[in-house]
Amino acid sequence: MSVAPETGISVEELRLAARNHAMLLEALRWPITPVGLHYLLTHYDVPLVDPTSWRLELVGAVERPLSFTLDELRARPAVELAATMECAGNGRALLEPRPISQPWLTGAVGTGLWRGAELAPLLAEAVPAGSAVEVVFAGLDRGVEGEVEQRYERSLSLDEATSAGCVLAYELNGAPLPPQHGFPLRLVVPGWYGMTNVKWLSQITVVEEPFDGYQVANGYRVRQSEDEEGRPVTRMRPRSLMVPPGMPEFMTRERIVDRGEVELEGRAWSGRAPIVRVEVSVDDGGTWADAALEPDPDHRWAWAGWTFTWDAAAAGSFTLCCRATDETGETQPLEPPWNLGGYENNAVQRVPIIVR
Amino acid sequence: MSVAPETGISVEELRLAARNHAMLLEALRWPITPVGLHYLLTHYDVPLVDPTSWRLELVGAVERPLSFTLDELRARPAVELAATMECAGNGRALLEPRPISQPWLTGAVGTGLWRGAELAPLLAEAVPAGSAVEVVFAGLDRGVEGEVEQRYERSLSLDEATSAGCVLAYELNGAPLPPQHGFPLRLVVPGWYGMTNVKWLSQITVVEEPFDGYQVANGYRVRQSEDEEGRPVTRMRPRSLMVPPGMPEFMTRERIVDRGEVELEGRAWSGRAPIVRVEVSVDDGGTWADAALEPDPDHRWAWAGWTFTWDAAAAGSFTLCCRATDETGETQPLEPPWNLGGYENNAVQRVPIIVR
Repeated sequence: MSVAPETGISVEELRLAARNHAMLLEALRWPITPVGLHYLLTHYDVPLVDPTSWRLELVGAVERPLSFTLDELRARPAVELAATMECAGNGRALLEPRPISQPWLTGAVGTGLWRGAELAPLLAEAVPAGSAVEVVFAGLDRGVEGEVEQRYERSLSLDEATSAGCVLAYELNGAPLPPQHGFPLRLVVPGWYGMTNVKWLSQITVVEEPFDGYQVANGYRVRQSEDEEGRPVTRMRPRSLMVPPGMPEFMTRERIVDRGEVELEGRAWSGRAPIVRVEVSVDDGGTWADAALEPDPDHRWAWAGWTFTWDAAAAGSFTLCCRATDETGETQPLEPPWNLGGYENNAVQRVPIIVR
Repeated sequence: MSVAPETGISVEELRLAARNHAMLLEALRWPITPVGLHYLLTHYDVPLVDPTSWRLELVGAVERPLSFTLDELRARPAVELAATMECAGNGRALLEPRPISQPWLTGAVGTGLWRGAELAPLLAEAVPAGSAVEVVFAGLDRGVEGEVEQRYERSLSLDEATSAGCVLAYELNGAPLPPQHGFPLRLVVPGWYGMTNVKWLSQITVVEEPFDGYQVANGYRVRQSEDEEGRPVTRMRPRSLMVPPGMPEFMTRERIVDRGEVELEGRAWSGRAPIVRVEVSVDDGGTWADAALEPDPDHRWAWAGWTFTWDAAAAGSFTLCCRATDETGETQPLEPPWNLGGYENNAVQRVPIIVR
């Protein structure tokens, strides 16, 4: 990790920005994000997987190692999970100085309707050893990162893996997983940042020592400098985003609305506790008023919709903001706390707008 | 239009790069690009369209103005068209100096399997006036561009509109059009750059004077300076891209392969004439050898696959290139001719690679 020496985005960052797709914020209108609008972060390449030879192996410190074909997984009891997923690096490019990696602005989020087999019963059938502490999830994607050649791997504690409601998803929004979202199988961990939702999943390994692979020990840690151990990135912090109102200017993305009542809408989520409040400011965070919150009780792990009527009576320039608070009392900061990797930036969204 | 004063990408360009999705080049493996991997350029916002109240109006200089519901269009004879579509600005960010707009590298392309009603019989039923010269296609997307408030509109000559095999598409890859690709209806003009394939189509107007709207008279023109009229961007120039072989480094996207035979693969297209030749260079364009070309005779308007076996016998650094030639004899340049808008950059792709 390093930080940008100047304000211009480098060609390396542009290469990442071109590959990694943000959700267009107007897609916040849909409770379930249409395929192709959900954000997408691909560490290496999207692998081409032959589903007939593909297997999911469940191995390691277990009494009974297991292996599944895709059909065998599909024959198990299926669950459906609407889950909001946000990249841990969302908002990175808004930090100063800017950590050099995928330069996300605010759109690295989406909500999928995932369908698959529950992880917990599979682990129970394999019977983890009493000494087991963690479960490692390995994808088929391979590359070099931080000078380490690796396949993409992330771990969860055995407790989290069995109690968090994890799903081994083979469908997204009613259709087979698209290649870019992990075909044929993806781990979905409700409430966690995206990096834990391993795509192209091929191996689950129960281990007796904490996993120290790159994506846990080096990547996705909140720290101020390289020589600090830091703490791991885990569950999503509370955040709210709005559909930018009015119409845009092509290049600047500046927004223009006509005077009068403007119906603002957006969505809010937290991986830590349910959202209990969303506030809106039309004066760049100077004063706040409550939005009407519409959580869907059937979908705890999906974002909650909210609306707010703004009486844009006078022409002029405004900066709109929204701020979510979850049941733990955690709320969004106005200014983001900085860290080396640019993770967990849940500072309030600012939407400059011209009323005419 | 302006050009970049320095090499760093501006925040404005980053905002566009975050919204506008390139195809990941490994998706060249699929003859039909999976939804969510096809490139996406959205001038303004993706509109939310209610298909029950939506209508397609066919009006203007016609004897019989027509109006269609979505069901009425779906009840007409359907055609299926596999069409490669490339953004006219693909490769813009590789030009020097860099024209300031959406900073595409090489991935602004994709091939969709579009299904819909043919345009020509609809126009015939409306009976254009003898004085009709062009047909204007208007989408429901609205914004400001070049200081002009507009809905997105593009025109075709009446001759092109009736003879080019245009399809009014309501399906992509066997499913209803996704919102971002123009739900409920999109014009697909085989062989043309993407800007002509109007999304969220709601009105077709036959006109008796050449259309001078922004996207024809100002945007999408090849010219060296603002005061030059230039020529319009029309059909896609020949181009070839390869799947970057080996595995990537996360940040630099540098590719690494092991010594030995490497199977290269890619696809090539031209909107002007069928592709007749693809060549590969493993020494940055110094020497060239023919690739095996596999055009699909059933899909003239889709890219043609090609393969090439590279004997990467020695370790070292290489730059791979590929170059397509179409039946007119037009081929790809090694260095791109510059223009103010950064259009039609079909210079050969360069893929740096390390053999170890």
